[in-house]
Amino acid sequence: MNFLSDNAYGAAPEIAEAIAAACTGTSLPYGQDALTARVEQRLADIFEHELAIFPVVTGTAANALALASLTPPYGAVFCHEESHIAVDECAAPEFFTGGAKLAHIAGEHAKLTPASVEAALARFRGGVHSPRPAVISMSQPTERGTVYTAREISALSELARREGLMLHMDGARFANAIVHLGCTPAEITWKAGVDALSFGASKNGALCAEAVIFFDRTRAEEFAYRRKRAGHLVSKMRFISAQLDAYLEQDRWLAYACRANGLAQRMAEGLVRTGVKLADPVEANEIFARLPDGLVKMLRGAGAQFYDWETSRNGYTLVRLVLSCLTPEEDVARFVELLGS
Amino acid sequence: MNFLSDNAYGAAPEIAEAIAAACTGTSLPYGQDALTARVEQRLADIFEHELAIFPVVTGTAANALALASLTPPYGAVFCHEESHIAVDECAAPEFFTGGAKLAHIAGEHAKLTPASVEAALARFRGGVHSPRPAVISMSQPTERGTVYTAREISALSELARREGLMLHMDGARFANAIVHLGCTPAEITWKAGVDALSFGASKNGALCAEAVIFFDRTRAEEFAYRRKRAGHLVSKMRFISAQLDAYLEQDRWLAYACRANGLAQRMAEGLVRTGVKLADPVEANEIFARLPDGLVKMLRGAGAQFYDWETSRNGYTLVRLVLSCLTPEEDVARFVELLGS
Amino acid sequence: MNFLSDNAYGAAPEIAEAIAAACTGTSLPYGQDALTARVEQRLADIFEHELAIFPVVTGTAANALALASLTPPYGAVFCHEESHIAVDECAAPEFFTGGAKLAHIAGEHAKLTPASVEAALARFRGGVHSPRPAVISMSQPTERGTVYTAREISALSELARREGLMLHMDGARFANAIVHLGCTPAEITWKAGVDALSFGASKNGALCAEAVIFFDRTRAEEFAYRRKRAGHLVSKMRFISAQLDAYLEQDRWLAYACRANGLAQRMAEGLVRTGVKLADPVEANEIFARLPDGLVKMLRGAGAQFYDWETSRNGYTLVRLVLSCLTPEEDVARFVELLGS
Amino acid sequence: MNFLSDNAYGAAPEIAEAIAAACTGTSLPYGQDALTARVEQRLADIFEHELAIFPVVTGTAANALALASLTPPYGAVFCHEESHIAVDECAAPEFFTGGAKLAHIAGEHAKLTPASVEAALARFRGGVHSPRPAVISMSQPTERGTVYTAREISALSELARREGLMLHMDGARFANAIVHLGCTPAEITWKAGVDALSFGASKNGALCAEAVIFFDRTRAEEFAYRRKRAGHLVSKMRFISAQLDAYLEQDRWLAYACRANGLAQRMAEGLVRTGVKLADPVEANEIFARLPDGLVKMLRGAGAQFYDWETSRNGYTLVRLVLSCLTPEEDVARFVELLGS
Repeated sequence: MNFLSDNAYGAAPEIAEAIAAACTGTSLPYGQDALTARVEQRLADIFEHELAIFPVVTGTAANALALASLTPPYGAVFCHEESHIAVDECAAPEFFTGGAKLAHIAGEHAKLTPASVEAALARFRGGVHSPRPAVISMSQPTERGTVYTAREISALSELARREGLMLHMDGARFANAIVHLGCTPAEITWKAGVDALSFGASKNGALCAEAVIFFDRTRAEEFAYRRKRAGHLVSKMRFISAQLDAYLEQDRWLAYACRANGLAQRMAEGLVRTGVKLADPVEANEIFARLPDGLVKMLRGAGAQFYDWETSRNGYTLVRLVLSCLTPEEDVARFVELLGS
Repeated sequence: MNFLSDNAYGAAPEIAEAIAAACTGTSLPYGQDALTARVEQRLADIFEHELAIFPVVTGTAANALALASLTPPYGAVFCHEESHIAVDECAAPEFFTGGAKLAHIAGEHAKLTPASVEAALARFRGGVHSPRPAVISMSQPTERGTVYTAREISALSELARREGLMLHMDGARFANAIVHLGCTPAEITWKAGVDALSFGASKNGALCAEAVIFFDRTRAEEFAYRRKRAGHLVSKMRFISAQLDAYLEQDRWLAYACRANGLAQRMAEGLVRTGVKLADPVEANEIFARLPDGLVKMLRGAGAQFYDWETSRNGYTLVRLVLSCLTPEEDVARFVELLGS
Repeated sequence: MNFLSDNAYGAAPEIAEAIAAACTGTSLPYGQDALTARVEQRLADIFEHELAIFPVVTGTAANALALASLTPPYGAVFCHEESHIAVDECAAPEFFTGGAKLAHIAGEHAKLTPASVEAALARFRGGVHSPRPAVISMSQPTERGTVYTAREISALSELARREGLMLHMDGARFANAIVHLGCTPAEITWKAGVDALSFGASKNGALCAEAVIFFDRTRAEEFAYRRKRAGHLVSKMRFISAQLDAYLEQDRWLAYACRANGLAQRMAEGLVRTGVKLADPVEANEIFARLPDGLVKMLRGAGAQFYDWETSRNGYTLVRLVLSCLTPEEDVARFVELLGS
Repeated sequence: MNFLSDNAYGAAPEIAEAIAAACTGTSLPYGQDALTARVEQRLADIFEHELAIFPVVTGTAANALALASLTPPYGAVFCHEESHIAVDECAAPEFFTGGAKLAHIAGEHAKLTPASVEAALARFRGGVHSPRPAVISMSQPTERGTVYTAREISALSELARREGLMLHMDGARFANAIVHLGCTPAEITWKAGVDALSFGASKNGALCAEAVIFFDRTRAEEFAYRRKRAGHLVSKMRFISAQLDAYLEQDRWLAYACRANGLAQRMAEGLVRTGVKLADPVEANEIFARLPDGLVKMLRGAGAQFYDWETSRNGYTLVRLVLSCLTPEEDVARFVELLGS
């Protein structure tokens, strides 16, 4: 019962097959191959917009490269204090941007709001003494497994436009958000004012495949240089693209996310039935809940693996449970059974 | 007949199988998995030395990260003016090091010599007005497909020690050098004074797998941070490690290189028989030769693909022909036949 | 009545004279001159310790260069959220360090405590996913004009030692702290565990002269490179050193600070007598107080210049009043008179 | 007889007086003062063009900041291999730009030509594998004391425009070039296609005062942030501006340079009369000549100080002799007398 992370699992069978198929023959390197072109076309169709895509192998690379393209080195990036770029990427954004400042913003359920961003902006009115506000970066879903509505995103992008900021979306689990909202990808990205998207696949059935997507193709040229000099232009790119191609084909990405979200719901319901209080609404494939320490111990004793998100306090521990599209159904069933609910 | 580059080909069958096998089950992320540990052990055995290894997905990442670990930002890296780090990595070393200076050094067959490095060092005696000499970076084999002998490497490392410099080796095609020299990996690395090695596999049958190797394990801790913040810590690392594991198992890496070197010899001999002059000794899997423009046209007309290395001059063009371990034997035979030699 | 900032004033007469005297004759450039050597000797005597000094022209340069020398690029610097390095230097520390992370810490009177730093450290236990804790940077006096006692500093340095961190002190107004505490410079620096000090003079009667001081001379060599490549090695260095020389001669630096602190006390007492509540204890040359908006308006109408530190709330505004060693006594007298206290 | 460098001397009397005058009274900090505004107006008048100016304290800062503003981090800067930015600034341009590449170009008398720059550009046609050509940086006068004509500069700027490059001029000794050419400042800057100028004063009678000048004012905003975060926004800016103000007033800058150039001519003529061969035409305030080692010894024995530019070869040493506007006339007379010419 591995609920540690979506990266604990391997590859969805269709993606594994696509990699195998890409192993033979010759092709042009550095993304000039047919598979990469096809992925770009698929994404353009899916997002109903022309776009420029850049496959890379990690979410940290996707985020940090995207931010470096959106902010000058003397800029400030406004993000939630619990966001991946703020706490899990070893200051990769600071490195890639040449020393831009991440302004950490507090907020419930790991979400930014126009009000909280405005309050943070107010501390950057010092002329050249403060870094120049440049980007709002939001995570969709958030680090707490919650999902912004299209309206919430638009509210942030309106603020961004008014203040001359770019809007970046860390979509490491983007598919899970789409499934939750039941909307089109366009509705929560360019139609809602998003400029750049880190489109993740590694956490949803791929091995190592993410894509940076710009909805304004004029950003492509400079980004290509940035990716190369960061060592993220994989020579045999088709192998990364093969994963994305299979991922997008026949809406598999949504089917995968649908499965993961569904498992999360099932487990969350099991927890609620036992009287456990969820710390955040379960809107994607992650559950954050405060469990009695006795229950935590029992579950682990029975073989369930998951992370403590905070250290125990007053007999309760905030834990995180992550469901992958590859989590065996019987593991979820067994977990719910253990709850005795 | 694709002789464009070793990255035009896909994966050796054993490596493809290893990837497929790594796609199922769960494991710890970020290199804490068993496969990564096994690769480290294999490399320690092969190099007959304790070492720290860091799998990454590109040679540019391996080189730039290694250099960033070996030089302070105010340092100078001495390298050949034709080396990959000097001309093919979009200044990745300058980016990763925080602005260190690459001192470009001329030299026959893309090789550094103690004399040429000393002459370059002489221009860095300006106290704080010059970057502080920090690293000698050599390519083994070189960009011109030539191979340093153990003695040549030792001569460079003696200079390095005397001057307080570190010695880095870009071994993107390291296996091809070993096969050519018929020596042990130890003999041309730590025994010859090499501090860090970019150990390549992508150009020799892997999809995207390189490893930075340090022979002094105390360098490991800080390097781990550098890799992470560069976005090069792949979460499902086992998939990169699976490639390296299969690559090293049963000395496949040497068998692959042996095949590529052999094909290169065969083509080079064919060229020489027709009276073509080789620009550099063919010691690995690359041929650099000045071909009459008529011959170039004929070969391309017949379907041979290869790069011009320099533009045509006086009726001759310097071309590069690269042989992969996956190049079909019939392509080489057909090429030699075309030469009519 | 200019209470805007200590940088609104020019130079103390003795410093102006020293500059004039340094304008003639020839000398060695880049700090090899006799005046710079004399300043180093004076500081060694004053601090009762061997040290390495590096004159620069701004406090931002002093802080950012010192931090770049104390943290690796993948490090974290723990500082107060109101500190100069956090909010007033346009992310210069992030730039100079190559992207290190500044961890902002809240705390009364702009002070760090071992407890607040420990709580912040707890969020950096993520292995390579978090920047590696590297430096505690404290301001003495703080941004709120308060002064750490030797005991408070020692408590921070004990934590630093235990955690393997370096301790940096931003002493832009260091003289004002010494005067307040009545201690020796040694007692609140190396004896209390400080590794590097930004020793300011510009805010206390010099034109543009600060010095980075290391108490461990082995840090000097690398720092010299950093200063040069940042464009902060002034060729006619003697002119910066002349200011420091005159500043330190005959304890003028303390006399200047004594005057400024005294004026601040006088004004603070005037405010308190009128019932105004000080926001922070007045321990150096700055006053932070919440004034009724009517009083603010009256004072400005009468010609007093000072900054709002926060925007008005509930009829009160937090204002900052800064006293320089060059503030005319009659301005202070007039201000107090205006208060009618 | 100090002919070591122009930075061996102090300040011209008028500049020393201007500093003294700036020491009293209060003013707005950070360049918002009246003196700084006056300097901007003076320069606009002198250059007959609207412009944005940024006083800084070193030439290295001026150059590196200007380049960082003109090239993206993934760009290439084309410069002479003997230029100050290439060899004397400890890779400050690489640091400030975030890792841009300096392409070193050989050429007689330290000059770039369209042909030599074009040849260098040809090596940067590798798409994203090479840094993107971004800037041509020329020194006026050059490191060898030679001066580009307006026609030569225009030829470089035509190439720059055609290739989409910016043109930067390192004018550390700009006044000396103007005096030599007898032209207007406009003719060899914006009229000839120069985008940014490092306008030096420190080597010509100021203490520490340079100005970065942009002829396109829209570059000002971002540059202001760059200067601040580099620690080069001096709080009591008026003191730097006072130097520039006195320097420009009544064409003193030209008078100073005229004196220095004249002294250089006089010494050069003395050398030529004795049969010494000048290595470069003497067009500004520097002499490069190959002197018999015996003569070198005699001159030093008699008290003349100057640098060897290269180590002795075949009995001759290339030496550099620099004349400042403050070099005593009797020193020059004595030197010429020693030559016995």
